[in-house]
Amino acid sequence: MYTAAVLGASGYAGGELIRFLDNHIGFEVVFLGANTSAGKTLSSVHPQLSGGERILRTFDPDKVGSADVVFMALPHGASAEPAMAILGSGSKIVDLGSDFRLDTAQRYLDAYGVDHPFPEQLGSWAYGIPELFGEEIASSDRVAAPGCYPTSVVVPLAPLLTDGLIEPDGIIADSMTGASGAGRSSSEALRFGVIDESVAAYKVLEHRHRPEMERVLDTFVDSDVSVLFTPHLVPMQRGILSTVYATPTPGTTLHDVETAFDSVYEASVFVRRVVEPPHTRWVVGSNNLLASFHLDTRTNTLVIVSAIDNLVKGAAGQAVQCANLMFGFEESTGLPAEGWMP
Amino acid sequence: MYTAAVLGASGYAGGELIRFLDNHIGFEVVFLGANTSAGKTLSSVHPQLSGGERILRTFDPDKVGSADVVFMALPHGASAEPAMAILGSGSKIVDLGSDFRLDTAQRYLDAYGVDHPFPEQLGSWAYGIPELFGEEIASSDRVAAPGCYPTSVVVPLAPLLTDGLIEPDGIIADSMTGASGAGRSSSEALRFGVIDESVAAYKVLEHRHRPEMERVLDTFVDSDVSVLFTPHLVPMQRGILSTVYATPTPGTTLHDVETAFDSVYEASVFVRRVVEPPHTRWVVGSNNLLASFHLDTRTNTLVIVSAIDNLVKGAAGQAVQCANLMFGFEESTGLPAEGWMP
Amino acid sequence: MYTAAVLGASGYAGGELIRFLDNHIGFEVVFLGANTSAGKTLSSVHPQLSGGERILRTFDPDKVGSADVVFMALPHGASAEPAMAILGSGSKIVDLGSDFRLDTAQRYLDAYGVDHPFPEQLGSWAYGIPELFGEEIASSDRVAAPGCYPTSVVVPLAPLLTDGLIEPDGIIADSMTGASGAGRSSSEALRFGVIDESVAAYKVLEHRHRPEMERVLDTFVDSDVSVLFTPHLVPMQRGILSTVYATPTPGTTLHDVETAFDSVYEASVFVRRVVEPPHTRWVVGSNNLLASFHLDTRTNTLVIVSAIDNLVKGAAGQAVQCANLMFGFEESTGLPAEGWMP
Amino acid sequence: MYTAAVLGASGYAGGELIRFLDNHIGFEVVFLGANTSAGKTLSSVHPQLSGGERILRTFDPDKVGSADVVFMALPHGASAEPAMAILGSGSKIVDLGSDFRLDTAQRYLDAYGVDHPFPEQLGSWAYGIPELFGEEIASSDRVAAPGCYPTSVVVPLAPLLTDGLIEPDGIIADSMTGASGAGRSSSEALRFGVIDESVAAYKVLEHRHRPEMERVLDTFVDSDVSVLFTPHLVPMQRGILSTVYATPTPGTTLHDVETAFDSVYEASVFVRRVVEPPHTRWVVGSNNLLASFHLDTRTNTLVIVSAIDNLVKGAAGQAVQCANLMFGFEESTGLPAEGWMP
Repeated sequence: MYTAAVLGASGYAGGELIRFLDNHIGFEVVFLGANTSAGKTLSSVHPQLSGGERILRTFDPDKVGSADVVFMALPHGASAEPAMAILGSGSKIVDLGSDFRLDTAQRYLDAYGVDHPFPEQLGSWAYGIPELFGEEIASSDRVAAPGCYPTSVVVPLAPLLTDGLIEPDGIIADSMTGASGAGRSSSEALRFGVIDESVAAYKVLEHRHRPEMERVLDTFVDSDVSVLFTPHLVPMQRGILSTVYATPTPGTTLHDVETAFDSVYEASVFVRRVVEPPHTRWVVGSNNLLASFHLDTRTNTLVIVSAIDNLVKGAAGQAVQCANLMFGFEESTGLPAEGWMP
Repeated sequence: MYTAAVLGASGYAGGELIRFLDNHIGFEVVFLGANTSAGKTLSSVHPQLSGGERILRTFDPDKVGSADVVFMALPHGASAEPAMAILGSGSKIVDLGSDFRLDTAQRYLDAYGVDHPFPEQLGSWAYGIPELFGEEIASSDRVAAPGCYPTSVVVPLAPLLTDGLIEPDGIIADSMTGASGAGRSSSEALRFGVIDESVAAYKVLEHRHRPEMERVLDTFVDSDVSVLFTPHLVPMQRGILSTVYATPTPGTTLHDVETAFDSVYEASVFVRRVVEPPHTRWVVGSNNLLASFHLDTRTNTLVIVSAIDNLVKGAAGQAVQCANLMFGFEESTGLPAEGWMP
Repeated sequence: MYTAAVLGASGYAGGELIRFLDNHIGFEVVFLGANTSAGKTLSSVHPQLSGGERILRTFDPDKVGSADVVFMALPHGASAEPAMAILGSGSKIVDLGSDFRLDTAQRYLDAYGVDHPFPEQLGSWAYGIPELFGEEIASSDRVAAPGCYPTSVVVPLAPLLTDGLIEPDGIIADSMTGASGAGRSSSEALRFGVIDESVAAYKVLEHRHRPEMERVLDTFVDSDVSVLFTPHLVPMQRGILSTVYATPTPGTTLHDVETAFDSVYEASVFVRRVVEPPHTRWVVGSNNLLASFHLDTRTNTLVIVSAIDNLVKGAAGQAVQCANLMFGFEESTGLPAEGWMP
Repeated sequence: MYTAAVLGASGYAGGELIRFLDNHIGFEVVFLGANTSAGKTLSSVHPQLSGGERILRTFDPDKVGSADVVFMALPHGASAEPAMAILGSGSKIVDLGSDFRLDTAQRYLDAYGVDHPFPEQLGSWAYGIPELFGEEIASSDRVAAPGCYPTSVVVPLAPLLTDGLIEPDGIIADSMTGASGAGRSSSEALRFGVIDESVAAYKVLEHRHRPEMERVLDTFVDSDVSVLFTPHLVPMQRGILSTVYATPTPGTTLHDVETAFDSVYEASVFVRRVVEPPHTRWVVGSNNLLASFHLDTRTNTLVIVSAIDNLVKGAAGQAVQCANLMFGFEESTGLPAEGWMP
C-alpha cells in the first residue's frame, strides 16, 4: 500500500481523485490539502464521499513530501511552488494542473503571458496520456497530466499524424464541455441562471489548451502542427465532445484512418473506436474515450468526433492511470471502464 | 463465484444491475434477458457498459433457472409468470418489480385493480430493505425488492413507528423523482420537451406505491398506518427526495426522533442521518440514504426529508444488497458508498 | 402615457418589468435604478432586452419621485428607505419586495427578527393580488406586491376559507421553485454545479413567506390560519408548483370546492381551474395561475396543486397588473395570457 | 384584418405561429389544421395558449384556400400536396417546411434522394430571409421560409460573400441546437433520458440543411459555395448556436468583415452584431439574430459565432416576418424584439 497526498482536495477533480484512491487496492490517502477550505471536514465540501470526518489541511511540504505519491489538482499556476518544494523528497508527483505541460519557456510565455518560475523543469516532466506515452510515464517520477480538451483532441489525432494520413496544419478543434470543466468557484459565469438552457463559445482564439495541443501533437510529426481551437460551454455537468476537422493527405482513405487508430489503441482498456458519433453520456463516469471518424470526399475533410468525461479521462481518472504505471500496477487498476446511464 | 441471470437487462435498473454484478467479486452474469431487445448486443442498449458484445436473449426457464440467483427488473405485472416458472429450480430470486411486495390478495386487488395470478405467494416473499428485514432476507430464497418511493419513506419512518413517536395515521409523503424513475420507454410523458424546465405532480391520490408503503409500515405498529402520497416529476435523471409530514405523539421531542433513527441504523453502511436537509446530489450514484428531521412545535408536525438514488438504493443497489445477504457476503460488497459530484 | 421608474433594474424581476413596460401602451420607463450596476448600460445586465443603450443610475429621490409610478424590485429590507423618501411626491408605488406586506409590527418582528423601521406604514399598503383585493389596489397609491410562493398558495385557498370549506389550521404548503426565485447573485447556492440535476428542501420551517401567507389568509376567515411551509429548489429557471394539503370541514365535497374557486375567479383573465394537475410549463412566460383540486376521502384531505411563473404572476407581471388597476387601465393590459412552449 | 390558416398547428412551430398571430393586429387565425390531433382542442396540445377551446381540423382545401394567408408548419415532404391544392385559390402561402426551398430538381434529388413531385415549382418560391430577400418576399405569393440552421449560417455569411471577403469554398459550419429543433414526436432520440446531460453530433456529413445553405449562399457569389456542416444536439429546449469557419481572401481585415455585415443589416430591427460571442440565452424568445466575428491571423481563418431562437427567427417568427412584408405591414409587427431571461 503506497501513501498518497491529494492537494486541491476541495475541487471537483480533487473529489474524484479521493473517490478513486479510497477504492484503490494500492493507494491510501494520508493527506488532504486545501487552501480556503483548510480546517473543514471532507464531508462539508464533498458530501457525496465517505470518510467525511477527515480534515482538510494547509500545504505542509514535510507531510506531503513523505507521501509516496502526490496528486496536485490546483488552479493554473499554483502547482509550481509546491511541486518544487517536494521534489527531492522522494515523492512521485502527478500534477493535474497546467504548470508543467509545455516543453519550453518560450511556449509557456506565449501561452500564459508570464515567464515560467522554474523554466529548467519544462520538458523534463512526462506528459500523462498513458496510451501514447506509457513508457515515459512508467519511468518518470514527475508526470504532467493533460488538460481535458487536449486529451479529447490528441488521442484521436496522434496515430493519424504519425502515419502521415492528415496534414499537420489547418486542424480545427471545435469542442463542448460541461460546466464542471470550469471548476467549482461561485463566479457569475457559473451561475445556474447563466448556464442552464443556453450555449456559448468562450475564449475564442485565446484558450490556453490550444498551445498544449500543438506542443503534444508536434511530437508525432516532423513539421509544426497548427490548431484552431474553439471551446463552448453547454448546459450539463460533465463531458467533453470534440468535433475535429483535418485535411487528409492525398490518397488517405477512411479505412487507413480507422486502421491507424485501431492499431495504436487495440490493447487499450479505455480508448475505443465507434462507428456512430459518440454521445458524451456513453462515457460519463468512466475513464473511456470513444471516437468516430467520417471522411467527406466532397470537401476533402476528415471529421472526428471524440467523447470523454472531463473529470475522469480528462482529469482524475487519467491521473490515477498514470500513477498506476508509475507504481507498477495494472494500468486500469481502480478505474471505471463502465459509465453511468442515465 | 455464483452465477446470476438478469431479466429486463435493457432497462435502467437492468443496466445498473449488470454494472454492479460485473464488478462484484461473488457473482458472474451468465444470462441477460430481454423482450423487444432480444437478439441485440448489450452495447446497443447500454453503450456505457463494457462487455458490450454479449447478446440479450428471450426468457428460457431452463437456462435462467440454472443460475444461482435471478434478478428480475421487469415492468409491473411481468415478474409473476417467470418467477413461478423457475421457483423450485433451486435459483434464488430477487424481484425488483411490484408483483410480490404486497402481503394479501385483497391489498393487491385494491392497489392494482386485478386479482393476483398466484395469491398463495403473497406474504411468503421477504421485503427487501436489508436494514430493516435483514434476517428474513438472509434466510429467504425469494425477495421482493422495494419500490423506490417506499424505500425513501419507510426507512426514516419505521423506527419512529416502532417507538411510538409518531401517530400512525395522517402521514403525508410528498416526493419528487428524476425521470429515470418512470423507466426507459419512448412515451410522450418522457420527452425532453415535456420534462425539461418543468415540474408536475402525477397520479395524485392514485400511485400504487402508497399501498406498498402502508403494507410495510403496518408491520412496525399495531394499528393501521395511513399515508397520503403525492409524487412529482422533476427535470433530472436520478434521485428521489421525499418530504414527509407526520404528527408526533404527545411528549415526543426531536431528540427522541433522532435517537430512534440513529439506534436502528448505527451499524448501517448506507443509511445515515444528516442535520441539514439533504440534496439528492449527495447520494446520486451511491447506495446511500440520507435523512434529516425537523420538528415544528407551532403546528405539532414532524418534517422528514430523505434522499436516495432511485436506481441504486431505490432499485439495483438494494437488490444486490439483498443478494449479498442471501449468499453470505458482506452486505455492502460491490456497492458504492460514495456518490458522484457533480 | 404615464412615466415609470424601475428600481432594481438589474435583477430578474427588474428585467421582466422593463420588458412588460417597454411594450405597454400606457407606461414609459424614464428611470432605471441600480446599485452595484449603476453606470452600466442596460444591455450589459440584460442582453435580451432592446433599448440596451440606456444607462442604469443610482437612486435619486427627486428624479424617481417625479415619475407617475415607481416599481421597486429590491432585495428584502431595501425598499423601506426609498419608499419613504418618495412618499408624498405624488408618485404611486408598487413594491415587489417584502417590506410592506405584513400588517403589524409584531408580525414583522416575528418574521424578520428585527423591528420595522417605519411600523406606522404597516397595514396601510394594499396587498397586490388583483383578483382578491382589486378595489383596495385600484384606490391605493401604495401597493405591496405579494411574494411568489404566497401568490401560488393564497389564490387557491382564499375562496375555500371564505366559504368555510376547509379548516383554517393544519394547512401544509409544499412548494418547488425554479432557481430564478432565489435571485441573480453569484452565491455558491446558485451555482450550476449545485442546482443542476439535484433537488433539495431549504429553509425548512423558517421561510419568511409563511407569515405572509398566514397574514393574508387571516383576512378571509375569523379564526387564525396556520400554515406549515416547505420550499424546495428544483433544477429549472422559472416556475413555482405548490402542492397544498388542507382538511375539509365536515360535509365539504369536491364540487363545493371547485364551485367556490370558479365563482371567485370566473371573470379573471389569468386565474383558471384545470382538472389534471398543472405542469409549470403550461404557465411559464404568462401571467396565468392554474390550479387543480383533489379530495382524498380516505384520509379526509384536500390536495391542491397550483402553478405560476414566479417572475410573472409571482413578481413583475402581477406588479404591472396592480399598476393597471391603479391607473385605470384594463387589468390585463400589456400582460401575456399565453405561455411559452417548450 | 386578414384571415390566416395554420397547418401543423399541433407542433412547436405551429404553437408559436398561433401565439404570434393571436396577438397580431393584422391577422386573425380562422383555421387550425392537424393530422393525428384533428378533432382535439387546442388546449389539449398547447396548454400554454389561450383560446384553448378551438378545435383542430383535418386539411380542407376549400376552407384553407379561402384564408388570405396559409402558414404550413408540416414535416418534410408534407407541404407539397396541400400547397398545390390551394395554389390558385388566391391564398398566399408561407411554407415553413423544406419542400420548396431548393431551386432545382437535381439539387432536390441530391438532397432528399427522391424526385420532387412538382419540380416546376422549384425556383419560383421566394426564400424567406426578409433581411436579404425582402423585395422578392414582398412581391411574392409563395414564400419558402428557411430552415433554422441555414438562417443562422446564411445571415452572417451573405454580406462577406457579396463583398468577396471570404473564399466560397472550405466553409465549415459547426452548429448546436436545442431539442425543439427535432420536433415534438415521442421518439427514442427525444427522450429526456437521452438528451439531458449529454451532447452528440448527428447526421454527420448527411444533414439536409447543407444543400440548402449552399443553394442560398450561391446567390451571393459567382462561383459555387461549399459547406461542411456538422449539427449537434445539446440539452436545452430552444436556441441554435453556429460556429462558422471561413478562409478570408487576401487582404481581408476584421474591420472589413464587420463593416460589410453592419452595412447590410444597419436598418434591421432583429439582426445585430455583437463583440463578445453571443449566448443563445440572449436571443431565446425573440426574433433576433446576434453574430460576432473573430479573425485568426495565425491560421488565416475567420470565426463567426451566431445565435438565434430556432422556433422564432428560425421558424415561426421569421415566417410571420415574411407575411408582414407580403401584406404590407411593418416588418417587425407582432414580433418580439426582446428575449426572455432567464
